[in-house]
Amino acid sequence: MANYIFSLEMEVRDYECDLQGIVNNANYQHYTEHTRHEFLRAHGVSFAELHTRGIDAVVARMQLQFKTPLRSADRFVSRLALRKEGIKYVFQQDIFRLPDERPVLKSTVEAVCLVDGKLSDCEELNRLVP
Amino acid sequence: MANYIFSLEMEVRDYECDLQGIVNNANYQHYTEHTRHEFLRAHGVSFAELHTRGIDAVVARMQLQFKTPLRSADRFVSRLALRKEGIKYVFQQDIFRLPDERPVLKSTVEAVCLVDGKLSDCEELNRLVP
Amino acid sequence: MANYIFSLEMEVRDYECDLQGIVNNANYQHYTEHTRHEFLRAHGVSFAELHTRGIDAVVARMQLQFKTPLRSADRFVSRLALRKEGIKYVFQQDIFRLPDERPVLKSTVEAVCLVDGKLSDCEELNRLVP
Amino acid sequence: MANYIFSLEMEVRDYECDLQGIVNNANYQHYTEHTRHEFLRAHGVSFAELHTRGIDAVVARMQLQFKTPLRSADRFVSRLALRKEGIKYVFQQDIFRLPDERPVLKSTVEAVCLVDGKLSDCEELNRLVP
Repeated sequence: MANYIFSLEMEVRDYECDLQGIVNNANYQHYTEHTRHEFLRAHGVSFAELHTRGIDAVVARMQLQFKTPLRSADRFVSRLALRKEGIKYVFQQDIFRLPDERPVLKSTVEAVCLVDGKLSDCEELNRLVP
Repeated sequence: MANYIFSLEMEVRDYECDLQGIVNNANYQHYTEHTRHEFLRAHGVSFAELHTRGIDAVVARMQLQFKTPLRSADRFVSRLALRKEGIKYVFQQDIFRLPDERPVLKSTVEAVCLVDGKLSDCEELNRLVP
Repeated sequence: MANYIFSLEMEVRDYECDLQGIVNNANYQHYTEHTRHEFLRAHGVSFAELHTRGIDAVVARMQLQFKTPLRSADRFVSRLALRKEGIKYVFQQDIFRLPDERPVLKSTVEAVCLVDGKLSDCEELNRLVP
Repeated sequence: MANYIFSLEMEVRDYECDLQGIVNNANYQHYTEHTRHEFLRAHGVSFAELHTRGIDAVVARMQLQFKTPLRSADRFVSRLALRKEGIKYVFQQDIFRLPDERPVLKSTVEAVCLVDGKLSDCEELNRLVP
């Protein structure tokens, strides 16, 4: 059980569903990316503004487990935990359907920071690690 | 000035921005489609459920005017007006940036109903026309 | 009948289809944008590189008529005509299903050039107008 | 080194790039999904047609390693290997930039078959396992 430090509620949009009538898998990456960026913003850090300053957080690895597919109009909550391992920022990002809290996605996202294209530590992100 | 009968507030998600750093135009179609479907849902009509019953609302024509580009993290409101012209449902859908209400998109979307693939009137939608 | 000066063949990808089992409308904007950018590239102009030089071609207006929906695995050709009207670049972009050449989309896309954010003429695009 | 049994060449489309100027990660899932579906089609199996028959191949797990980001107009090849583990179909899907063959993505995708919603074996896919 992760120590979630941020959560974001969203709702499936019909255009995110594919011909199987369920949310296309790629959209779960959109959901988790949006959750990370909203987490940053909640702490006054803008992903877009970091980029203009030459600081890019990039995903190096991702592990995804798809538990239950989301469907048209489903509400869900996207939860985030964060720890640091060496130079890597390891996000555990899990999605649960609402209101029944049924697990939808379990994922681990490892990100690193590039400053002017070079791998390096990032003070803006370090501040956010519990 | 349109007689808007529905509005939906949203926020730009970073993955919707392209290499120009502004929301990619195709996403405005996503925003307006999602607004129409939420408008239906607010009246108890599910686009997905209509489809399973063989009723498909499809867009026949669209006119879009792009006024001001949205950027990362911008909030906006998507407003909708609806009238019927013969067998066509004509949605006027305009988007305004928040909080300054600056016009972002002015659009007209003409939709028709296909029942089992044949053009026909749709009681579920007729009920929603003011 | 337009004087097409460029055409690009593509194929529907399943993730572009939505729960109606047909290509989601927003993807036609992706198809036409990609066609414009490939047209530029065919003449040695890179949309991305223009952007890095402060030159942004942006769409001001768009008119779309949806004739026949594309489905999973459909092949199609996207054709482009171009004329200039004052400071506007007017693209007529039509899509036809293959091999039967059935009309899928008829569209008109009006673009303008921003240089360092200011509306202005763009030599790189002027060269491409027949 | 995987025993690739299928490969597909593609090219980055500008709308797939985000505000960092590189392909947004979610699009790599689109690339790998499209590659799997093209692999099926090359063997006369249609993902969409399977769905209409109540047979759905769904992804249960995915591991992604992002090596080098793709950029505007990059060409790349998406390669696929397949093995079966019990009831799971394990795809190794790797993407390499062209022409320099630089590794872009290394991924493992585990899929299972649902027939009328129930986990079961799928003859159409079994035939494709080397």
